[in-house]
Amino acid sequence: MFDRPLSDTHPATNSVRLVGAGPGAADLITLRGARALKDAEVVLYDDLANAELLDLCSEECERVYVGKRAGSHSASQDKICQLLVEKALTGRRVVRLKGGDPMVFGRAGEELQALTDAGLEFEIVPGVTAAAAAGAVSGIPLTQRGITSTMVFVTGHDCADRATPVNWQALAALRATLCIYMGTRRFGTIADKLMEGGLPLDTSVAVVAGATLSSQDVRIGTLADGDRLTNDTERRPALIIVGEVVRWSELATAAKQLQSVSGD
Amino acid sequence: MFDRPLSDTHPATNSVRLVGAGPGAADLITLRGARALKDAEVVLYDDLANAELLDLCSEECERVYVGKRAGSHSASQDKICQLLVEKALTGRRVVRLKGGDPMVFGRAGEELQALTDAGLEFEIVPGVTAAAAAGAVSGIPLTQRGITSTMVFVTGHDCADRATPVNWQALAALRATLCIYMGTRRFGTIADKLMEGGLPLDTSVAVVAGATLSSQDVRIGTLADGDRLTNDTERRPALIIVGEVVRWSELATAAKQLQSVSGD
Repeated sequence: MFDRPLSDTHPATNSVRLVGAGPGAADLITLRGARALKDAEVVLYDDLANAELLDLCSEECERVYVGKRAGSHSASQDKICQLLVEKALTGRRVVRLKGGDPMVFGRAGEELQALTDAGLEFEIVPGVTAAAAAGAVSGIPLTQRGITSTMVFVTGHDCADRATPVNWQALAALRATLCIYMGTRRFGTIADKLMEGGLPLDTSVAVVAGATLSSQDVRIGTLADGDRLTNDTERRPALIIVGEVVRWSELATAAKQLQSVSGD
Repeated sequence: MFDRPLSDTHPATNSVRLVGAGPGAADLITLRGARALKDAEVVLYDDLANAELLDLCSEECERVYVGKRAGSHSASQDKICQLLVEKALTGRRVVRLKGGDPMVFGRAGEELQALTDAGLEFEIVPGVTAAAAAGAVSGIPLTQRGITSTMVFVTGHDCADRATPVNWQALAALRATLCIYMGTRRFGTIADKLMEGGLPLDTSVAVVAGATLSSQDVRIGTLADGDRLTNDTERRPALIIVGEVVRWSELATAAKQLQSVSGD
């Protein structure tokens, strides 16, 4: 079964694959994703995917870096879409490698729209998203019978002109597990809003930085700790888990209790 | 890098791995998950994981079925925990294979608790969860700039004695993407509650059954369609996506528009 070439199910030429690279460690890509990389003639990648994955590509495969270092942040998504279409129109097998899962905070919508506008077909290979990896390494089940059956994925990224601001107070009222992506820079503000929304000061928080990488670091505290939990993780990808389920991390040997923070 | 045995990072004896099998197709397991299966001496599996994955195990590997057919539903989780501990105490390498991701509606909490109580170590290998696969096959980005930066994973499973009932009206007020797991049997009721909570009758809904399997089926409709969207998917695993992002499915060739339903 694992030897079946991807092309059996996707015989289309001019096809582009958006492949989820997974949350960090290279071996957390799927078998299908790994095969797509092996099969690729062009791969577009950025800093959010583990660069070791490029070792799976053939020597002939053209590697195109489209990360932040390649240009200004604001213009990059348009440029990526343009490049993606350009490469696909050559008729070669193109992989767009994306950190985590393409459909979860992955800006996949813009890329799919650009491909469709150009009359190109696409396939999406899902991946393990950061929240699942954060749960795995910290021993925190994101849902748990008797505690919560609702889990929210939300971005903490600051974007003043965003058409759809996050309603943190409404999220607080849900009493759900909150998984905050890109939230370390603004966690002080976010924690304040969640407490204003009614979450108790002692609501448990886990900050999981670099999950599944050698730099992995798990910190446990409470909302009242605010940005003291995140203030030196700002430059690293981190996932913040808020909610009662965090108490399960006590079971995990991986969790490093920061007494200086949580004992305040 | 992909040849490094798992035991390098987890040298502990008596260890148990909870492995996410992914959302359906066998090749959507991670490389690490596949290696754990190859390495296993005992594997506990149920109906939620693709049975083809057992082909990855060695001939000597003991396969233990712990699905619903093995006993009454209500007692099974306790029995699984007991079996898991029993097998691990023999000192063999045990894999507990779980559909999707272990930490997302996977009942992992109970199993981790049982292992910890028995003094056993564990590792969790994350997996692709059903919502990511549903987004991938339907072409629906679960988050999308300008539409929503909040996504909710919630169970629609009916459980009258549940300590933590889902607050559907509060979820409606979020204007988030809702990914409803195990919701097909009760979708009529859920849709009513979401509309009572203020979601417009024409809010888009996708019902994605058997995502990534040959039986895959994507239906697009609106909240007003209610259980007509789900009434013959009851016996199949399906993921329901509610929200404005569903309109992106029009881009995807995989989406099968059901005129008889959505055209009402």
